[in-house]
Amino acid sequence: MVLRLSTLFLRTLREDPVDAEVASHKLLVRAGYIRRAAPGIYSWLPLGLKVLAKVEAIVREEMNAIGAQEVHFPALLPREPYEATNRWTEYGEGLFRLKDRKEADYLLAPTHEEMFTLLVKDLYSSYKDLPVCLYQIQTKYRDEARPRAGLLRGREFIMKDSYSFDIDDAGLDASYAAHREAYLRIFERLGLEVIPVKATAGAMGGSKSEEFLHPTEVGEDTFVRSAGGYAANVEAVTTVAPPEIDFTDAPPAEVKDTPDTPTIETLVACANDIAPRDGEPWTAADTLKNVVLAATLPTGERHIVIIGVPGDRAVDLKRVEANIGGFLPVGGEVAIEAASEEDLKKHPGLVKGYIGPGESLDAAVLGTEGKTGLLYLVDPRVVSGTSWITGANLEGKHVFGLVAGRDFAWDGVIESVEVRAGDEAPDGSGPLEAARGIEMGHIFQLGRKYAEALGLQVLDANGKLTTVTMGSYGVGVTRAVAALAESNHDGKGLVWPRNVAPADVHIVATGKGTEIFEAAAELAAGLEAAGLEVIYDDRPKVSPGVKFGDAELIGVPTIVVVGRGLADGVVEVKDRATGEAGNIPLEAAVAHVAALAGK
Amino acid sequence: MVLRLSTLFLRTLREDPVDAEVASHKLLVRAGYIRRAAPGIYSWLPLGLKVLAKVEAIVREEMNAIGAQEVHFPALLPREPYEATNRWTEYGEGLFRLKDRKEADYLLAPTHEEMFTLLVKDLYSSYKDLPVCLYQIQTKYRDEARPRAGLLRGREFIMKDSYSFDIDDAGLDASYAAHREAYLRIFERLGLEVIPVKATAGAMGGSKSEEFLHPTEVGEDTFVRSAGGYAANVEAVTTVAPPEIDFTDAPPAEVKDTPDTPTIETLVACANDIAPRDGEPWTAADTLKNVVLAATLPTGERHIVIIGVPGDRAVDLKRVEANIGGFLPVGGEVAIEAASEEDLKKHPGLVKGYIGPGESLDAAVLGTEGKTGLLYLVDPRVVSGTSWITGANLEGKHVFGLVAGRDFAWDGVIESVEVRAGDEAPDGSGPLEAARGIEMGHIFQLGRKYAEALGLQVLDANGKLTTVTMGSYGVGVTRAVAALAESNHDGKGLVWPRNVAPADVHIVATGKGTEIFEAAAELAAGLEAAGLEVIYDDRPKVSPGVKFGDAELIGVPTIVVVGRGLADGVVEVKDRATGEAGNIPLEAAVAHVAALAGK
Repeated sequence: MVLRLSTLFLRTLREDPVDAEVASHKLLVRAGYIRRAAPGIYSWLPLGLKVLAKVEAIVREEMNAIGAQEVHFPALLPREPYEATNRWTEYGEGLFRLKDRKEADYLLAPTHEEMFTLLVKDLYSSYKDLPVCLYQIQTKYRDEARPRAGLLRGREFIMKDSYSFDIDDAGLDASYAAHREAYLRIFERLGLEVIPVKATAGAMGGSKSEEFLHPTEVGEDTFVRSAGGYAANVEAVTTVAPPEIDFTDAPPAEVKDTPDTPTIETLVACANDIAPRDGEPWTAADTLKNVVLAATLPTGERHIVIIGVPGDRAVDLKRVEANIGGFLPVGGEVAIEAASEEDLKKHPGLVKGYIGPGESLDAAVLGTEGKTGLLYLVDPRVVSGTSWITGANLEGKHVFGLVAGRDFAWDGVIESVEVRAGDEAPDGSGPLEAARGIEMGHIFQLGRKYAEALGLQVLDANGKLTTVTMGSYGVGVTRAVAALAESNHDGKGLVWPRNVAPADVHIVATGKGTEIFEAAAELAAGLEAAGLEVIYDDRPKVSPGVKFGDAELIGVPTIVVVGRGLADGVVEVKDRATGEAGNIPLEAAVAHVAALAGK
Repeated sequence: MVLRLSTLFLRTLREDPVDAEVASHKLLVRAGYIRRAAPGIYSWLPLGLKVLAKVEAIVREEMNAIGAQEVHFPALLPREPYEATNRWTEYGEGLFRLKDRKEADYLLAPTHEEMFTLLVKDLYSSYKDLPVCLYQIQTKYRDEARPRAGLLRGREFIMKDSYSFDIDDAGLDASYAAHREAYLRIFERLGLEVIPVKATAGAMGGSKSEEFLHPTEVGEDTFVRSAGGYAANVEAVTTVAPPEIDFTDAPPAEVKDTPDTPTIETLVACANDIAPRDGEPWTAADTLKNVVLAATLPTGERHIVIIGVPGDRAVDLKRVEANIGGFLPVGGEVAIEAASEEDLKKHPGLVKGYIGPGESLDAAVLGTEGKTGLLYLVDPRVVSGTSWITGANLEGKHVFGLVAGRDFAWDGVIESVEVRAGDEAPDGSGPLEAARGIEMGHIFQLGRKYAEALGLQVLDANGKLTTVTMGSYGVGVTRAVAALAESNHDGKGLVWPRNVAPADVHIVATGKGTEIFEAAAELAAGLEAAGLEVIYDDRPKVSPGVKFGDAELIGVPTIVVVGRGLADGVVEVKDRATGEAGNIPLEAAVAHVAALAGK
C-alpha cells in the first residue's frame, strides 16, 4: 500500500523536542517516528513501526537460522521464580514491582532467565532433549534511574532475548559461539558497526560474557581497544600482573616519621627528603595507597572494604562495582562509594591518611590476619615480593620497605583502578585507547546458576540427574532503531540504510498541474507493483521546499521528484545518502528505482 | 522450515491441567500451545505463537483494508491522562497500578482511549486532517477478579484496539460502519461464527455499541435473540413500554390492612382474600415490588437506590449495573448488591416488606418529592396511569389502586428486571430466546467524552474550534485463539480451520526402515517447496499410536502417514476434521496435499 502523505498519520516538526540531547532522539521525534509517552517510555507512529518491524524480522531470521525456536512469555510475572534466584531483591530499584488485587507480588520482567528455566524444566527431562535454544522478541521493563537519549535507554523497550540449554560445557560453548556468529550477522545486515568486547557478567551471574558495542560518542559504555584487536568493556579489562619477586634478601620494613603526609603527593616529597633512594627518586608508583570504600548490598546492608593500589592509580568505582561481587556475602547489584567519616569512626584503628596493611608491625590492622577483620583487597600489581611505602596506621608515620607476602597478606585481588589510555592490552596486542559505545547485544555463559536455583536437572546418558548449563543472549531491538538513527543521519535528517528504511522510495510531486500528480501516482503504483515500498507526497497545497525538507528529514534511501522535468519526460532521482541526483526518463523510472532497491 | 518433532520444543500431555475447566484451555495446554505462568497469565510455545501470528495477520490486513493505520503504544503509562478522564478511579480494582522509583503513579493499560486522543491532539489541528483511524495490536492488562478458562479471560492478553476520529456524527457513523464490516470479515476469515448484538457502553461511556459474540455454552456473556434477527446483550435488551393510561376516572387509592404479607406471594393471596377483583384474580403482575439496592461507586461511596418493578419480575443485578450509570454522581464501574440490614436501619421510613412510593399518602417516602430523598427508579412497564398494589410504608399495610403519575413520581426509568425466554423482542421480531457467548469484539461510538476531557479540538471549515467525535473498537486476539480452539475440537484434540492452523500438513513417519524416514523427509521438503507449512514427526523411537495421537491432538488440517503403504508406493492422506482417509501414490502426494491446502 502506497503511503500517501495526504493521509499518513505523520506531522514532521521543525523544532527539536526540548528533552532531546542526542541526534537519534531529536530526529526520530521530529521526523514522526516516535513520540514520548512518559520518561523513557515511547509510542511508535506508523513510520517508526515499519523500521521496528524490519529490525525484528532480521533478528528473527538469524535466530531461526541457528535453530533457535520462538516463544513468547508474559511481561507481568509472579514474584516466586525471581525470589528463588534472589533477583527479586538483587535487582534493587531497577525492578518495577506491583501487587494484584489479592495483594500478591508481581513484577514487570527485565529479563526472563527464571521463566525459560522453569519452562524447560516443565517440558524436558532427558539429555536427549538437549540442546535446545529458545527466544522471544518481547517488551521488557527496567526502572532506570536516569532514562535518557530517547530509545537508547528506555524504561519500556523491546529485546530479543534467548536462552540456551546444554548438558555440558562443550555444548554451552557451541551455543555461545552460534549466538556470537548470529549476532555479528544481525548487526552486519542492519548496517550497524559493532565491536564484540569482553565484559563482566554483572548482576546476571555466570562466567564468559561479551558485549556488542556500537562505537559512538553518545554511548554510555566506555571501552578500550588496542590496535592489535583487543577490546573490552572498561569494567572487564584485566591487568597483567608483574612476576613475583624473591624477597629473601629484602631489607626489613621500617617505620619512619613522616609528619603531615596524608596525601600521596606529600608522602612522596617527604620520602625523597628523609630517605632518598639510590639511583632514582621515589614516585607515587612506589607507594601503596589504601582506599576505604563502602559497599551497599541489594539488601541495604553496608560493608566496609579497603583496597590497596599503587599510589599513582585512582580507584574506578564502576570497576570495583563490576568485580567485587565474589567477595561479598550477597550477589546482585552493589553500589560502591567512598567511605564516609561516620564509617571511619566505627573503625578507630584506621588512621586517615596513614592507613596501611603491615601485619608484621605493631599497628597491623588489615588483611585476612589483620586485627580489624575488614575485607582487604589489592590491585593485581601488588604481587608477592613487591616492596612499598605505605601507612603505618599511626598519625604522621609511614612504613618503608613493606614487602607483600612477607609483611602483609590480603583477602583477594581485584581489578579496581582506572584503565588509562596507553596501558598495555592484556594480550600484548599494543597500548589501549578509550572509546565510547552503545551496548547493542550481550551474550553470557550463565553456567548452572539458574538451573541450580530452580532445580533444572535432566537424566544424563548414564541415567544420573545432571544440572543443565545455560547461556543467555540479548539484542536491544528498540535500541537498535535508535543506534541506526544515531549513526545514519546528516544535517538535514535521517539517512536510513536500505535494509531498515520505512520505505524504498519517497516520491515528491511538485507543481500544480494535475498531470504531475497523475504521473506521480502512476509512478507510485508502478513501483509498488515492482515490489517496492513507496511513500508518495501527494499533498496538494504544500510548497516544494517543505516537501523536499520532509523527504530529507524522513530519510528514505531514494527520492524521486516529479515536477518541472515532466514537461521534458524526465523525473529526478536523488540518493538521500550521497545527495547525487540525475534525471531519468519517466518511462524508465520504475526499472531504474527498482534496480537501486535491489528489486 | 519444516518443524521436526524430534527437535520442536513441544511435549504433549496426556492429562488435562488441573485448573482447566473448558475444552480450549485443556487442549491448548495438552497439545503444547500455551503454558500457564500465573493466574490468567500465559506463555506461548512455538505452535501457539504460530496460530497467534496468523490471527494477528488477518486482523492487521482487514484493519489496513479500511484505511486504519498501525501504531504501537506502551503498556506502562502515567496516571495523568487516565486521571483527566476519571478512569484512574473508575476502573476500580480491575486496573493494575504501580509506582516507579520516584513514587510517580503508573498503570498497565487496559485500553488506550486517552493516549490515542492525546496523540491525535498532539499531531492534528484541522478538520482537513480528519477522518483518521489508528490501531494497534498490543498487550493489555486487566486485574480480573476471576481469571478463568485459560485464554478466554486472562489478565495479560493481546487486543487489537482501534480509535476513529471524526469531525461530525456522520463521520463517526461511517467509521463505525467500516469497523462493523471489517469485524464481520475478520471473523469470517478466522472461521469463527459471531453474532453482532446490541450492547451497553459500560465503563467506556459513549452511545451506540455492539458486541460480536461467539455463541458457545462456555461463554460468560448471556444474550438473547429472536427468530426474526434481533440480538442483544442481556444488559442491553430494552422493554417495550405499554401505552400510558388515562387516569381521570380511576378510583382513589386506599390503604388496607394486609397483616403478615411481606412477600409478593403472601400479598397476592391476601389481596384476593380481602379485596377480590371482578373477573380475574389479582396476580403478582398487579403488585409493585420496591427493591432496595446498594450501589458501590468506584470511589468506594455507597448509595441506596430503590427500584419499583412489577411483582412478577425479579431484578437482574447485572442489568442494573449496566444501566444505572446515568443516575449516579460518578461514572465508571458500579457494584450493585441487595441493601443490607445495616443500610435499611439508616432509613427507618423504609418498612421492610411494606415499602411503597405513594407520595399522596401520609407515609409517602420515596421518589423525587418523597421524604427520604432516596433515588427511586422504575421499570419501563410502570407508565403513567398504571394502577398498583404496593407497600404503604406501614407494618402490615398495603395501598391498593396506587396510580403511577397521579399518586407517585419517580426519578427515572431503568432496565433492571430479568429478561425471560419468551419475552417479545423490542423490534417486534418475535419471542426472545437466551443463549451464551464469548465477546470477541466490541465497537463503540464514544462520541465526545474523551475528546472533551482531554481537549481534543480542531478547527472546522469555518475556522471555529470543534471537539472531535470518536469511536473505539476492539478485537480480543488471544481470546480469538481460545474461541477457535473451543469451537474446533473433538474427542481426540484440536481441529484447526486451515486459515489459522499452525501448519498445513502433519507428516507421520511410522515404521523402522530408513527408507520410510527418507521418503517422509523428502515429502516434507517437497511440500515445503510447494509453499506449505509442514510438521514432520520424525521421532525414531516413538510408537505409531503415540504419533497418531499427537497428530490428532495438535490438530493440523491434513495428516499424511508414511508407513506400511510405502512398499506399494502409497501414503495415507487423512482429513483431521472428517476423519476421511485414502491412499495416494507417493509421487502424487505433494500436488494432492498442496491442492488441499489451496496452494
